[in-house]
Amino acid sequence: MDSLREILGAIAKFRDDRDWAQFHTPRQLGAAIAIEAGELQQAMLWKSDEQVASLVAEPAGRSELAREVADVLIFGLLFCHAIGIDPIGAIGDKLEENAEKYPVEFAKGRAAKYTSLRHDDGK
Amino acid sequence: MDSLREILGAIAKFRDDRDWAQFHTPRQLGAAIAIEAGELQQAMLWKSDEQVASLVAEPAGRSELAREVADVLIFGLLFCHAIGIDPIGAIGDKLEENAEKYPVEFAKGRAAKYTSLRHDDGK
Amino acid sequence: MDSLREILGAIAKFRDDRDWAQFHTPRQLGAAIAIEAGELQQAMLWKSDEQVASLVAEPAGRSELAREVADVLIFGLLFCHAIGIDPIGAIGDKLEENAEKYPVEFAKGRAAKYTSLRHDDGK
Amino acid sequence: MDSLREILGAIAKFRDDRDWAQFHTPRQLGAAIAIEAGELQQAMLWKSDEQVASLVAEPAGRSELAREVADVLIFGLLFCHAIGIDPIGAIGDKLEENAEKYPVEFAKGRAAKYTSLRHDDGK
Repeated sequence: MDSLREILGAIAKFRDDRDWAQFHTPRQLGAAIAIEAGELQQAMLWKSDEQVASLVAEPAGRSELAREVADVLIFGLLFCHAIGIDPIGAIGDKLEENAEKYPVEFAKGRAAKYTSLRHDDGK
Repeated sequence: MDSLREILGAIAKFRDDRDWAQFHTPRQLGAAIAIEAGELQQAMLWKSDEQVASLVAEPAGRSELAREVADVLIFGLLFCHAIGIDPIGAIGDKLEENAEKYPVEFAKGRAAKYTSLRHDDGK
Repeated sequence: MDSLREILGAIAKFRDDRDWAQFHTPRQLGAAIAIEAGELQQAMLWKSDEQVASLVAEPAGRSELAREVADVLIFGLLFCHAIGIDPIGAIGDKLEENAEKYPVEFAKGRAAKYTSLRHDDGK
Repeated sequence: MDSLREILGAIAKFRDDRDWAQFHTPRQLGAAIAIEAGELQQAMLWKSDEQVASLVAEPAGRSELAREVADVLIFGLLFCHAIGIDPIGAIGDKLEENAEKYPVEFAKGRAAKYTSLRHDDGK
């Protein structure tokens, strides 16, 4: 599979083959995303930064993380479908909004939240 | 913007213009996904199902949800980048795995978890 | 066990018997809370409101929910310990802060967020 | 305030003064816990371990973390109330269950998940 359009079609087919759209309200999908985000964090829990780096470096560990983040993305795309928006358009709009909130000249190399960004001298 | 490749390029450019890859460890991005999942749920919190449906039906409400789910997707894609996997491939692999866990003949129209799916007589 | 002091002692003993304080940084405990919150939501996922009510009404279902929320509370209390605060004091302070943000005369019977509460005429 | 019984009474009074029990279904409270867990993680996001340690060491930073974890605990206790369980009893039961899953002789000083604990030779 090599394009987003194809993958969106595959996700919709998976759902519709099982007649699952009836369960996919925005609230349920929002909860599903949070649950999968938790499982993704679980895969790294109690590990040191070095142990996480080892996990990423090993095929089995990377594959575990890939499966968990894939679930996040799948439910995120299903959420877009459920509320009738185009995910690519939504991401593009959000990047533009973030670009205004985090202008390069203020944000470069700094992780401060945008609300404190212009007044913060450091980090 | 109309393809995933372009959007991935735009996300990477946004990050690199701000020199933010240094902050994007798998653990931090995993936390960021969970935080954004929380914000998405926040937009629906305490609302009845009817109020959520109204939110989705209004342009301002739908746009709010779109912004929040876009953040989930952006951090999900950044996580894929940080661990060096292709998001489309990861989603495709996960759909195949889920198709085995949830065979159509058992899962159709039922929301049971796969571990109880074959022994459960309807829900 | 019948008092918070005893339960805090039991949690600390459980942790120290296993020499686990070394893993309990604020960041790891914050992730653990989010993970357990996800598991709590998982127990209700895809269920209708009626099915959740049935779950609560059955001893086995209520026990499942009790176990998940207990994990949230345990990690919340461990977080308090890790940053050196008294959980009862923190809750008391937060209730006072919330009482100012949500005055009874404005908030009664309404679920609006405090930022829109005074300008909102019913929801 | 110095006992859990008093704090539970104060939380219930806060809720009932505002007539908010009507919004406090198990599902909504589960989402609220996940949202607050996200806000707690937000307070540490993008920070290095040293920066989190500094946050904990400063009164303002510790107070921010205290407010966020207090929200987690408040909603956790409200969840217990909504499903009709005693939080202290639930925590005590869960500690006993965890003590069986993580026997001291296997778990001491190791962060492995219980499912792999007995077969894992160190981590």
